[in-house]
Amino acid sequence: MNIYDVSERAGVSIATVSRVLNGNPNVSEKTRLRVLEVMNELGYTPNVFARGLGLNTMKTIGIMCSDSSDSYLANAIYFLERELRANGYDSILCCTGTSLDTKRQYFELLLSKRVDAVILAGSKFIEMKDKDNAYIIHAAKELPIMLVNGYLDAPGIYSTVCDDRAAMFQAAEKLLQSGRRNILYLYTSHSYSGMNKLQGYQDALSAFGLSVRKELIYQCAKNLHAAKELLLSLSESGLKFDAVMTSDDSLAVGAVKYAHARQLSIPDQLSIIGYNNSILSYCTDPEISSIDTKVEALCTATVNTLMGVFGKGNVPVKTTIAADFIQKQTTNF
Amino acid sequence: MNIYDVSERAGVSIATVSRVLNGNPNVSEKTRLRVLEVMNELGYTPNVFARGLGLNTMKTIGIMCSDSSDSYLANAIYFLERELRANGYDSILCCTGTSLDTKRQYFELLLSKRVDAVILAGSKFIEMKDKDNAYIIHAAKELPIMLVNGYLDAPGIYSTVCDDRAAMFQAAEKLLQSGRRNILYLYTSHSYSGMNKLQGYQDALSAFGLSVRKELIYQCAKNLHAAKELLLSLSESGLKFDAVMTSDDSLAVGAVKYAHARQLSIPDQLSIIGYNNSILSYCTDPEISSIDTKVEALCTATVNTLMGVFGKGNVPVKTTIAADFIQKQTTNF
Repeated sequence: MNIYDVSERAGVSIATVSRVLNGNPNVSEKTRLRVLEVMNELGYTPNVFARGLGLNTMKTIGIMCSDSSDSYLANAIYFLERELRANGYDSILCCTGTSLDTKRQYFELLLSKRVDAVILAGSKFIEMKDKDNAYIIHAAKELPIMLVNGYLDAPGIYSTVCDDRAAMFQAAEKLLQSGRRNILYLYTSHSYSGMNKLQGYQDALSAFGLSVRKELIYQCAKNLHAAKELLLSLSESGLKFDAVMTSDDSLAVGAVKYAHARQLSIPDQLSIIGYNNSILSYCTDPEISSIDTKVEALCTATVNTLMGVFGKGNVPVKTTIAADFIQKQTTNF
Repeated sequence: MNIYDVSERAGVSIATVSRVLNGNPNVSEKTRLRVLEVMNELGYTPNVFARGLGLNTMKTIGIMCSDSSDSYLANAIYFLERELRANGYDSILCCTGTSLDTKRQYFELLLSKRVDAVILAGSKFIEMKDKDNAYIIHAAKELPIMLVNGYLDAPGIYSTVCDDRAAMFQAAEKLLQSGRRNILYLYTSHSYSGMNKLQGYQDALSAFGLSVRKELIYQCAKNLHAAKELLLSLSESGLKFDAVMTSDDSLAVGAVKYAHARQLSIPDQLSIIGYNNSILSYCTDPEISSIDTKVEALCTATVNTLMGVFGKGNVPVKTTIAADFIQKQTTNF
């Protein structure tokens, strides 16, 4: 049921129904009463009005992110808000943290606000177990769900992803070509994006005929001092490595600090590669070679796809964007 | 006019009006029609419903910031959203950029959405000329306006500020006590906060019986490479300085890079002090002494004050929070 049904039953134009909805005084009392009666007959209640205001939409998109103070997600929110605004949509922001229960609760809350779509920003929303994603798949029957750098194959879900696997493959390949053979890999999470990055690293080793060595792969908190301490303890335990690849620039900053603490020359004795090409990768001396994950392009493509969905056009369910390797001072390719 | 007027005129309880508004089926057709008629008589139109849904509020707060990807503002948005959510309010985010016209347009847009209050995050919203702030003062007659680290003296406007002047005074005093006499001062903007910081620096010099030297005070883009280049060119021009104070950590990172480029030892030959104690101040080697501006406390206090305003309690129109100096490796106090 929508404004068209009300218009038809009341025998007035859609513009007139819209005027009644908006409290515009240019409607006769008789017409106004007739429209309100029809709304009542049809059970077209104000909650639906609230959605409607003439167009059956609040022109509002829910954006969920795990942590808006994370620099990657802060950039994503900035670009998403800008692109939505340019298309006449407001954004309601929810910072959910990482617990599944809380994410579900915020999701329900956004749906109860009758938003027109939900954008899940960042790869932290897709869980490893299918049953933990059921609530998203279910909601996608009601309204479009947009994933920024996450992927889930179900009707009504649209993904825009950065090709993290290829980006990491190419970066690892460059290190291998330059003669590095003991490449330590540090990562922060098992998210969709995190797993693709790790796969790229492993695939590059395989392509070079090298085996993947578990003692060179470590998970680490997203904290530069934690990364520095981890590398110091690995080095003290006798582990040899001539390069560090990371799933996040903050870990690469920790690697630079480790090299300084050990007086290792960068990149001769230790090459370091960050991820996201954030401001952090420019703060250190030497500055950190990193991977530009094109967050602006990802967000623009996400909003373009969403507008395509609203326009009932044919839109891609998955859009993949290539990353760029940004050569700075911690590698010598 | 509100739900209470409708309830009284229709001779039904507020709960019943609320049920009609929410499309709850537990209302007789007769009562439902009566309530809709009264709404019509009173001109209580769906736009007002939309605000209402039983409580005459959308439970939504507009947050405006100039740039959500700035690390200070990203943190502010995170804490504001969290505190509002804990109080049952949604946040609509607007990233406005810095042009006055655009800020005004976004402000109008938020008001048209019937938000319950507007929070202006960061000190970029208060202009030097009174006439440029008139639109804010005017709007504050309609709904509460909350300033996070900005100040404007008018009814309906509530400010929570960090005592930037005192923080900068104390930091400059420490430098002077440790024997520094040529303290270069770099700042990014003439905002409310920016002017208070500069005043603190100048007051400390005066308190030490030193004159303020214009050739030691420079405005600089908020960009670490711009700050580094500026310092290199000042040094080449023959300017002598033994300390650099900055209004933002990004400029202090540039100062560290300058010192590295000139092979100056930090802090012996050059002391450096940042501002905001952001992640940037931890990325460099040595790590940068900085000022913790308590953004979480500022945001919590802002939301507490707003809830006090909604509760019709007596609330402070200005709350001042003290900053902390965080001693790291670029000073030796």
